[in-house]
Parts: sequence; C-alpha cells; structure tokens
Amino acid sequence: MIGRFKHGEEVFYGEVRNDRVIVDRILYRDTFLLSELQLLPPAQPSKIACVGLNYIDHASELDMPIPEKPVIFLKPASAVIGHMGNIIYPDTTKQLDYEAELAVIIGKRCKNISSTDAGNVIFGYTCFNDVTARDLQKKDIQWTRSKSFDTFAPLGPYIAGPELDISNLAIKTRVNGELRQDSNTSNLIFSVPQIIEFISSVMTLERGDVIATGTPPGVGELFVGDEVEVEIENIGTLKNNVIAQD
Amino acid sequence: MIGRFKHGEEVFYGEVRNDRVIVDRILYRDTFLLSELQLLPPAQPSKIACVGLNYIDHASELDMPIPEKPVIFLKPASAVIGHMGNIIYPDTTKQLDYEAELAVIIGKRCKNISSTDAGNVIFGYTCFNDVTARDLQKKDIQWTRSKSFDTFAPLGPYIAGPELDISNLAIKTRVNGELRQDSNTSNLIFSVPQIIEFISSVMTLERGDVIATGTPPGVGELFVGDEVEVEIENIGTLKNNVIAQD
Repeated sequence: MIGRFKHGEEVFYGEVRNDRVIVDRILYRDTFLLSELQLLPPAQPSKIACVGLNYIDHASELDMPIPEKPVIFLKPASAVIGHMGNIIYPDTTKQLDYEAELAVIIGKRCKNISSTDAGNVIFGYTCFNDVTARDLQKKDIQWTRSKSFDTFAPLGPYIAGPELDISNLAIKTRVNGELRQDSNTSNLIFSVPQIIEFISSVMTLERGDVIATGTPPGVGELFVGDEVEVEIENIGTLKNNVIAQD
Repeated sequence: MIGRFKHGEEVFYGEVRNDRVIVDRILYRDTFLLSELQLLPPAQPSKIACVGLNYIDHASELDMPIPEKPVIFLKPASAVIGHMGNIIYPDTTKQLDYEAELAVIIGKRCKNISSTDAGNVIFGYTCFNDVTARDLQKKDIQWTRSKSFDTFAPLGPYIAGPELDISNLAIKTRVNGELRQDSNTSNLIFSVPQIIEFISSVMTLERGDVIATGTPPGVGELFVGDEVEVEIENIGTLKNNVIAQD
C-alpha cells in the first residue's frame, strides 16, 4: 500500500509496511514510523470525474433508468478529505447520504485511452465516499451542488497498486459498525477500463486525477455524530465522522 | 487590462497598455512589447463553476423552467483555452453551440462570502464561451459530458479589474462577423454577488477559480471553420476558431 504523507513541511508518497513507512529518496531510503507522519488524502486531483448509476440495483433504488453510456459528473477538488477527516453536515440539506465507491487514481497525463490501454494510466486504487445531499440532488436540475460541498469527497486511506485485480472485490459501507452496503465490484455495469476510455475521450486526465466508479445499492442516511466506513477488499477501510456545520 | 503571459519559461501577469505590457517586479518594473509575449488564458483555475439558465429568455429558448436558485455545474480546468486558441469539434457530437458569458476570476481563497462582501474576493472579469455539445446535453441526464470536452472553455483575452461596474454591460456573440447574441448583463437573473454567495456557501473557492454567470438568449451552432467572438463592453473580445478533431 502507498500512502501520501506530510512530515514537517515536506509532502511525499511512501510505502506502508505495518507500522513503518518506506520513502524512496534519490540515493537512499528513509524509514519513518507511521505514527510520526500526518496521513494526507492519497491524491490531490485537478478533477474528480464520477460515474453515476453504475450498479444496476442502485439505479433502481433511486428510480432512475439504467444508462446506455456512463453518466458522468464532476466533484471539485475542494471537497476532498482524507481518512479520519470530518464530513461536515451542511445546514442547507436535510438528507445526507453515503455512497461507497471504488476510486481509480490516474498515474499520468492522458487523452483518448482505449480500454485495452487503460491499465497503463492507472496509478492505483483507493476507497471513495461520494457524499451526497440527496434532497438537493432531487431538487436541483443538476447534481453538482448536492455533491460538491466541502468534505463531500472522502478518499483513502492508502493506494493499492495497479497490479491489483479489481474485477471481483467486496465493497461495503458500515455506519456506526452496522452493515449498510454490501456488494462486489463484479456488479459494475461499466468496467474501469471502459470508464477510462469513455472519460478520456472527453477530457484530458492529469496525474493525480480521481475517477469514481459509482455506488452499489443500499445508499442511506448519515446523521451528525455518525462514523461511516467504506471498505473495499484488498484495498482498505476509509473511516470518517459526521459533524455539524459551525 | 491585466493579461497572463509567458516569456521563455516564465509565466506572469502584466498590465496591458496599447502595445506594451508593464510587469511589476519586486524592486523595479519591466516593460515588454505585447508582440514578444505569448498570451495565456487569464487564469489557471482549480475549478470552473458555472451558472445555468441565468437569463430569462435563454431558459425559455431551451424550454427549461426558470430556476428558483442558481443551477450550478462544473467544467474541468482541462477544457480551458485562451484567446485565439482553437475549439476542437468532437466526433461524438452533431450540434456544437457557443454560449457567451461574463466570467468572474476569484482573487483569494474564500468560503461563505455574503453578497455584500463578494467584491472583496473578485480579482476581475473576463469573457467566457461555455461551448456545449447541445445534442449530448439533451441526451445525457447530466450536463457534464456535453460541456467538459477539451477546448470547451475559452477564456480571455484580458482581465478587467474589480472596480469595473458590471451591472450594465453589452454582451454579444458574433460568428464569422455576424451578430448572434446581443444582450446586457443587466438581464442576469442572479447577480454576480448573489452567485458568489451561493457558490461559496457550497464550496471553497481558490485564487484563480472561474465563475461563469450564464448565457443570454440567441445560442446557436458552430461549424468547423467558423470564427466565434464573445465581446463584453469594457472587457474585451475573445476570439476562437473551430477546427475538426484529428
């Protein structure tokens, strides 16, 4: 697993091995204790491109049709928080929902990547929570406002490398320890390579950009004080707490 | 007028006076000939937050209801081009439209700015063309794909300072010299201060972020070979040509 860390003023990626972090320098390796580093969100994207309605049963539960092509929307980088960051419940919503998603971190600047070449532009995989103000999503014509509040893009904790086979991984959400979403990435309508082909046919992807692949059924509400966990098999568990707006 | 320029490897802002560019250094001023500098898009945003349907007659012409609150959507920074950059007509669309808009460049990182304080966070104003694949906008549930193709966010040429009164400015589009949009910023449904209050209540705005304020009626098609100009009184004229995809 690869993590992004801060130590003093320095920000770097390092390999996490149990309670140690190995950092490759130009001519040597540094080793830190995990406990002496500040864990950051695993990427600083220029954009977060998300796919909506990418698990059949989730489209049904929202009473939305299954799309013929991926439905894409953007979340701003200003919404990103990391593992253990707080999700702020905005005053303007009355229904805040979690959405567990597999996220892809892009490894290099690219455009018009075919699905067969998609593996070459993947830096790795992490957990994502596409936090959504469901009432605002239903009210607005566009989904942007409901998904763009600060703290609505929890990402992390670490990155699993591109060698991971992501075709058959359990994906779960727990709220205060209780299982709420329980599916598998094998249920994705559009696969990760298909999504990369589709999105990169529209926009240039930059190193560090995040692609979120959609959420399985079982979405539901979060309340102030809740602890929400997104767990993906062989990737990790992203944990965040919900707090009230100041 | 303030422009963003490149000279050798250096990127800087400078004041444009006729054919000269004045650049304030720490202890002195540099003067360049405009012709010896490369003009860049006037901002490098972390996000472009756009308001849809913000002129009454444009909402009617698209047969969409007038919104009670601003409808917001995002365009990615990867879509930005500057004055005289080429708009690439994607193979996947059959109807490419121009949309002239007044754009606000944000001057400092901010959140939860009231409309009365909005003036303090404005770096200036420029012209924007919210290029849209209209057929894809109608087909997709979300507007994102139709508005996010590379080159779909022409911005520039220069920035007028925040002292400009933008409440009553003529805004026009010309295609191959022919007038297509002809309105006035006095027809905006939501004013610039109201938009800044609304968007900054959702997301943190960063220095250099762009807010596009919506397009007046008269939207229409562009074809390969066209020259499109967005002109805003006392701000300038943004000119771009439409070329075919490779």
